[in-house]
Amino acid sequence: MPAQSMEELVSLCKRRGFIFQGSEIYGGLQGTYDFGPLGVELKNNVKNAWWRSVVYERDDMEGLDAAILMHRMVLRHSGHEATFSDPMVDNRSNNKRYRLDHLLKDQTSAVLASVATAFNLPLETDLADVVAALMKDGAAAEIALNAAKVIDPEEKKPGDWTEPRPFNMMFKTTVGPVADDESYAYLRPETAQGIFVNFKNVVDSTSRRLPFGIAQIGKAFRNEITPRNFIFRVRELEQMEIEFFCKPGTDEDWHQHWLEARLAWWEAQGIPKHQIEILDVPAGDLAHYSKRTYDLMYNYPSLGFEEIEGIANRSDYDLGSHSKNQADLGLTATVSPNDNSIAKLTILEQESNKHIVPYVIEPSAGVDRAVLAVLSEAFCKETLENGNERIVLKLKPHLAPIKVAVIPLARNKTELVETARAIKQDLQKLGLGRVLLEDSGNVGKAYRRHDEVGTPFCITVDYDTLGRGADGDTSLQDTVTVRDRDTMEQIRLPIVQLRSYLLEKLS
Amino acid sequence: MPAQSMEELVSLCKRRGFIFQGSEIYGGLQGTYDFGPLGVELKNNVKNAWWRSVVYERDDMEGLDAAILMHRMVLRHSGHEATFSDPMVDNRSNNKRYRLDHLLKDQTSAVLASVATAFNLPLETDLADVVAALMKDGAAAEIALNAAKVIDPEEKKPGDWTEPRPFNMMFKTTVGPVADDESYAYLRPETAQGIFVNFKNVVDSTSRRLPFGIAQIGKAFRNEITPRNFIFRVRELEQMEIEFFCKPGTDEDWHQHWLEARLAWWEAQGIPKHQIEILDVPAGDLAHYSKRTYDLMYNYPSLGFEEIEGIANRSDYDLGSHSKNQADLGLTATVSPNDNSIAKLTILEQESNKHIVPYVIEPSAGVDRAVLAVLSEAFCKETLENGNERIVLKLKPHLAPIKVAVIPLARNKTELVETARAIKQDLQKLGLGRVLLEDSGNVGKAYRRHDEVGTPFCITVDYDTLGRGADGDTSLQDTVTVRDRDTMEQIRLPIVQLRSYLLEKLS
Repeated sequence: MPAQSMEELVSLCKRRGFIFQGSEIYGGLQGTYDFGPLGVELKNNVKNAWWRSVVYERDDMEGLDAAILMHRMVLRHSGHEATFSDPMVDNRSNNKRYRLDHLLKDQTSAVLASVATAFNLPLETDLADVVAALMKDGAAAEIALNAAKVIDPEEKKPGDWTEPRPFNMMFKTTVGPVADDESYAYLRPETAQGIFVNFKNVVDSTSRRLPFGIAQIGKAFRNEITPRNFIFRVRELEQMEIEFFCKPGTDEDWHQHWLEARLAWWEAQGIPKHQIEILDVPAGDLAHYSKRTYDLMYNYPSLGFEEIEGIANRSDYDLGSHSKNQADLGLTATVSPNDNSIAKLTILEQESNKHIVPYVIEPSAGVDRAVLAVLSEAFCKETLENGNERIVLKLKPHLAPIKVAVIPLARNKTELVETARAIKQDLQKLGLGRVLLEDSGNVGKAYRRHDEVGTPFCITVDYDTLGRGADGDTSLQDTVTVRDRDTMEQIRLPIVQLRSYLLEKLS
Repeated sequence: MPAQSMEELVSLCKRRGFIFQGSEIYGGLQGTYDFGPLGVELKNNVKNAWWRSVVYERDDMEGLDAAILMHRMVLRHSGHEATFSDPMVDNRSNNKRYRLDHLLKDQTSAVLASVATAFNLPLETDLADVVAALMKDGAAAEIALNAAKVIDPEEKKPGDWTEPRPFNMMFKTTVGPVADDESYAYLRPETAQGIFVNFKNVVDSTSRRLPFGIAQIGKAFRNEITPRNFIFRVRELEQMEIEFFCKPGTDEDWHQHWLEARLAWWEAQGIPKHQIEILDVPAGDLAHYSKRTYDLMYNYPSLGFEEIEGIANRSDYDLGSHSKNQADLGLTATVSPNDNSIAKLTILEQESNKHIVPYVIEPSAGVDRAVLAVLSEAFCKETLENGNERIVLKLKPHLAPIKVAVIPLARNKTELVETARAIKQDLQKLGLGRVLLEDSGNVGKAYRRHDEVGTPFCITVDYDTLGRGADGDTSLQDTVTVRDRDTMEQIRLPIVQLRSYLLEKLS
């Protein structure tokens, strides 16, 4: 039973220190989020699980961490300068700007019919196709929007619409002391391009042969017009991307391989199969570089099935686009001419002994969307036997921000605290992740808190531990209470057995 | 014996896949670098070692990961809009721009004397003070620079100099669809501000009391006029920063505590004490927010002693600057008025039962500079007994990008490769970091490569391992050769003993 609404996740995230609005004390910077003490651990655990799975546990992968600021030529030849844009239209009367498709979506059918008719389109034409038609003839579109009296959603009356224009979603910034036409760079809109432009560097320094892949985790930036749905659609995001290079002709098999590998990974993170739908993207909807794409759609609370990962067959489009001497490469993809690159992005193919441009399979997942899905799936409201309700995050142990909380029964009793501290330090050395000394002095409250943040085990140090039980009972000396998050069962264990008990349960 | 020059490090980094120039195939984007397959592991290992030390192994720290894009008000009230700048001057005759101090540094003493005299300064005045004087009266400075015939270093003749102006080093970008005066944000020039603006969020969600700290690792961006010295001075950098909050009056003790803690950490990363000098920054050179600062200066190859970490006592400047109702807070620092913040960044101090603004101790280290120092310190050229030379990176095992390489004696022999793969998979499960199946088919070359990249152990699987030794000898069946990077000694070990042997040596 995952989260029922985005609101309950947002509330938990703020209250317990997973995720805060970025720049919150200044009213927030829309589309940016800060990961708090628990969020940073959860996010790092997700990233580490991915890295382990796609780099360490395979024999055909390398890692990379390229810069965020990229030369404008990288994003020109990747196609982003020309195509990474949304259609926008301005209302001259209030200087507001809208995404054309969002604007039209909210109009009456009469208004829409008027716009369609002006472009000789049947009334049942898809909105996306209407937008495409309008963008092809901006001057006519301006006339049609105004003639149809398209309503401004903020003013609730017809706007004075400009010609619609594409608005590029890349963030641009000036690099160096002089702001001129040559001195800007982009914040990368995806990590993928950092992999493509380093293809030759990686091949040369590792002597890799086909097939092999390169994995990267890192921030990417998209100037979304309307960031929304918490960390689902943001302006500063993080990606986990693989570019897997293979011999043309083997690409379809590798595409299937990665589809299965990635589905298995999501399941290992606690996302059950039935919560992910595989969308085999229809040919007409494919991106310009894609031969075929699977979108993995997770069932987000309040949103329904939305993309959590895309697995695309990008053919030889990207390496071909970034290569010099394209005419010599026998490319199958249609690429734009490139007079700027100084490299030929080919690799020696053993069987044919020829330098070829490999095909690329790209499994590309969002870190923030992964965190949101993992949180949602783990979220659980339970009614206890006594009628009380508890919230518990049933996270897989390897993802839990805190693995074990060690709790002294009372806050200011030195012996209790020091015994707890010693246990914490010892368990920390197991290398399982964060172990917390929870020195709040209220065990019941600590249990509730650690249920809510998904801590698999709480260990309580009490007077019995010190050999000072009621009536001088010393039989429980050097033992502690271990509480299980999911069952809420408590057992008494000797301190010396904690290591092996937790190692078995947590790794 | 660390590296003797930056050049030999740069060369190794490129050749072996540690670090490449950013956007290299398009001529490079100055001041950006991409971390290759080995660089990403080394960098992650450094970051993990830091996180473990400052978050996991302490009981008074929390972690954080705030966004890179920050609201302009954050950087206004931090003081960066006003002060994070370099003095620049343009030469009208060739449109070149120079940092004023760099320009003056290279002039003859006659030229300098003329400039100083124009400002009634003694001839022996420090360059920094001359620059400060010129910046105070730009119009007079323009006259003085031109009258003194200050030479343009590129044209080798006097320039036609403009009034010098401060040039802000923050990267700015437009956020949202409309580029107007309100719609820009900054790429953070330091991670620190993300901690300050989240102070209240962290306190509220964790119930922390003083003293406690918040740690963060992340990218920061500075539009350096002249990025240089490989990854030492870059435009896109990564920081490991701690803001430690304590009661005023205890700040000097905590400052000393962190100085010692951080020196111990550097030593644990393989940087010996004698390679770091502690600079107690003279009062006159302190940043505006600092009560006292120690700069840790590492002895970089080709550069000499340069800052690798700063440990500053920032007083109550930062939290005070970002607070509303400043007049009520009893601040000791001088802060600018703040009508934009919606939060009072105070915490309940137990003893006095009053809400106070804590003092802050900030240990701030550069990830890239740490990587460079670790590489330099580990770099070693040895002359072997046979007269050959080898390069070996004597990295601490926890920092080594690859922990163990498993090498089949020959490339295409299925049994050798599969045995090696099984060993690799088994050792990978130890969780020590990356274990590599090195399937190149040339053991000698593999040893040299792994010496150069610092792999502590190489394991070779040969025909003896398969029980097919010379003359049918089966005595070495299920054993492998284990080679030590530093001693180059090789021992024969049963496969079943590898786990315990490597666990002991590597953890």
